[in-house]
Amino acid sequence: MTRFALTIEFDGRPFMGWQRQSHGPSVQQALETAAHAITGEPVAVHAAGRTDAGVHGLAMRAHCDIGKAITPFRLMEALNARLRPHPVAVLACEVVADDWHARFSCLGRSYEYRIVNRRAPLTWEAGLAWQVPQMLDEGAMAAGAAHLLGRHDFTTFRSAHCQADSPVRTLDTLSVTRTGDRIAIRAAARSFLHHQVRSMVGCLAMVGMGRWTPDRVGEALAARDRARLGLNAPPDGLFFTGAIY
Amino acid sequence: MTRFALTIEFDGRPFMGWQRQSHGPSVQQALETAAHAITGEPVAVHAAGRTDAGVHGLAMRAHCDIGKAITPFRLMEALNARLRPHPVAVLACEVVADDWHARFSCLGRSYEYRIVNRRAPLTWEAGLAWQVPQMLDEGAMAAGAAHLLGRHDFTTFRSAHCQADSPVRTLDTLSVTRTGDRIAIRAAARSFLHHQVRSMVGCLAMVGMGRWTPDRVGEALAARDRARLGLNAPPDGLFFTGAIY
Repeated sequence: MTRFALTIEFDGRPFMGWQRQSHGPSVQQALETAAHAITGEPVAVHAAGRTDAGVHGLAMRAHCDIGKAITPFRLMEALNARLRPHPVAVLACEVVADDWHARFSCLGRSYEYRIVNRRAPLTWEAGLAWQVPQMLDEGAMAAGAAHLLGRHDFTTFRSAHCQADSPVRTLDTLSVTRTGDRIAIRAAARSFLHHQVRSMVGCLAMVGMGRWTPDRVGEALAARDRARLGLNAPPDGLFFTGAIY
Repeated sequence: MTRFALTIEFDGRPFMGWQRQSHGPSVQQALETAAHAITGEPVAVHAAGRTDAGVHGLAMRAHCDIGKAITPFRLMEALNARLRPHPVAVLACEVVADDWHARFSCLGRSYEYRIVNRRAPLTWEAGLAWQVPQMLDEGAMAAGAAHLLGRHDFTTFRSAHCQADSPVRTLDTLSVTRTGDRIAIRAAARSFLHHQVRSMVGCLAMVGMGRWTPDRVGEALAARDRARLGLNAPPDGLFFTGAIY
């Protein structure tokens, strides 16, 4: 068996999320079905993170073990041919050590959340960004974001379905950048809780709208109470942008 | 009657192009149907340019005359409400003089052509960019583009269906910029011939692939012969980005 690391881009719109589900299509299922068709063996594909329904991947990292003799380039080409018409593409493929694990070896994960801040509805970006009609103050959002940086108990920003043992995480980056009517929020950490990025973005949007002061983000964090969450941002604007090892 | 200027964004994928057609949906028809529903009158919408099937608009300019008393803001909001579920959005609306004409008053038009230069197929950008698997040399493409700047007879870069009286145009900008695996080609001129941008991009791609020297672009231009065209780029990657008045 040879272990291959994959870098995967996917459009989350038609999927129930990364993880295989009994009730609908998943990115994992699309990849495992393609790998099975190529190798004739059942193949398990493990990812750096399990994204929710409607969340996208620009550079998800994953791995799989393949018995058949095949070069990384041929495996990438064959997967891309078999993945059609699913909006999933393998951008890179390499051989890695047998103990390299996309999830457990991962030292850092990053996300980007895209907001289109305008009155008009989205056209080609529908499902690929969060359209917010109220004018957002990105300076206030950045001030609110500063309260979340560092090591904290993120219970307020954690889904009730989160399976992590501890609510403590260390947030290394949470930046807010406006370019015209687009606002990008970039987050990086060793790992995130379930819904953490969308929950943080939702609170920052409350600040941007002027409904919350920046300090209230810190108060919500300190409360360690999910009921204090302002708003959970929709999955549409969330992109998994990378994992480091 | 009051004349309103509109700034319109649209996803060209489901449309036969800007102009109303008997055989399929058009952006013009979507807008005119929405305006009719709001005003109760037949409304004609005139654009700065008529884009082809599958070509997109980031900031198409257009105008229409409306008899009903309505503010620009209310007209924009009502059009956006009535345009659903078409991927067409009115980004801005203003009152203009009765002799202002989106097409005839236009002093300059600009386009951006988006190439994704990679082996892997497109996912969320399918239909929104041209995926070119061969590695493109953007420096050579820029050198080829330099041959097309200025006032020339663009017969080589003109569709057989072009209705313009003259094949002479003055190309003010044709830039080639790479950011990672994305190449953006930006073009600006007072006006363009039918298929001119896609034809120019096709030849630049031939240069980028190493199949043409940069000088051959100049030779193809000088030949004034459509048969000398290297390649017509697909509509997918083409965005109308603005008009100046």
